[in-house]
Amino acid sequence: MNTEAQKAGLDWLEEVKWTSDGLVPAIAQDAETGRILMMAWMNREALQLTAETQTAVYYSRSRKKLWPKGESSGHVQKVQDIQLDCDADVVILKIEQIGGIACHTGRESCFYRSLVDGQWQTQEPVLKDPAEIYK
Amino acid sequence: MNTEAQKAGLDWLEEVKWTSDGLVPAIAQDAETGRILMMAWMNREALQLTAETQTAVYYSRSRKKLWPKGESSGHVQKVQDIQLDCDADVVILKIEQIGGIACHTGRESCFYRSLVDGQWQTQEPVLKDPAEIYK
Repeated sequence: MNTEAQKAGLDWLEEVKWTSDGLVPAIAQDAETGRILMMAWMNREALQLTAETQTAVYYSRSRKKLWPKGESSGHVQKVQDIQLDCDADVVILKIEQIGGIACHTGRESCFYRSLVDGQWQTQEPVLKDPAEIYK
Repeated sequence: MNTEAQKAGLDWLEEVKWTSDGLVPAIAQDAETGRILMMAWMNREALQLTAETQTAVYYSRSRKKLWPKGESSGHVQKVQDIQLDCDADVVILKIEQIGGIACHTGRESCFYRSLVDGQWQTQEPVLKDPAEIYK
C-alpha cells in the first residue's frame, strides 16, 4: 500500500488492478439512457482527476499523455458515478455527454456499427461534421 | 488480408484491431435494460464462435483458453447484437442474460461497487450464493 495515497485518502485508487502499463479500461455510459458511448483508458492520475473534478479525463495511449475529454471539441463528460467491477480491473463512468456527441466521427456513440450479414454496418448518422467540431 | 478468412466470409474478423496478444475487450450489456453486466476479453476464435452461435464465448486470460460463458453456472448469454467501435478495438455484445446473474459473486452485474466518499461501496445484493451456482 502506498503511504502517500493513504495520507491523501486515495486508498480507493490502490484497489484498482492496473495493467502492467499502469492503465485501466474505462467505459463511458450515458447516465440517463444507458447507452454506451465509448471505451478509453485511464492511468492513475486520470482516474484521480476524474473523481476530483467529476469530469472525464482519460489517458491517450497514442499521444502518451492525459486526455481531458472534450478539450478540443467542447464535448466534455460530466461524471455522475464511477463504478468498479468484481475483479477491480474495469471502471464505468456514468456520464452526461455535453453536446450529445462522444465520438470523434461526430456521432453520439463510438459504437455505431453492428455485425449484420457478416459485415460491420453503420447504424447511425453523423450528427456534426468533425471538421466543424475540431476546427 | 487472410485469404482463408475471405473464403469463409470472415473479413469482418480481420477488421477488428486485435491487441498484440490477439485479444479485444468485449462489453456485455443487457439488451433490454441497457445495464452493463461485465467486461471480458475475446480472441479471434471466441468472437467467431460468439457470432456463429449467438451465445457469448470469451477467452480466459488466466486459464488461457476459450471460456463459453455459463459453462459451469448455466448463466449463458444469448447474443442479440454485436457492435464495434470507431477504432475497431472494442466490441459490445447486446445480450439476454439467462438466470439474471452475470457475476461470479452471484450478482446481476460485475459492476456492483460505486465510488462514494472516497470508498468503493457495494451497491447491490448477492442474488444467489456462488456455492450454489458453481456446485
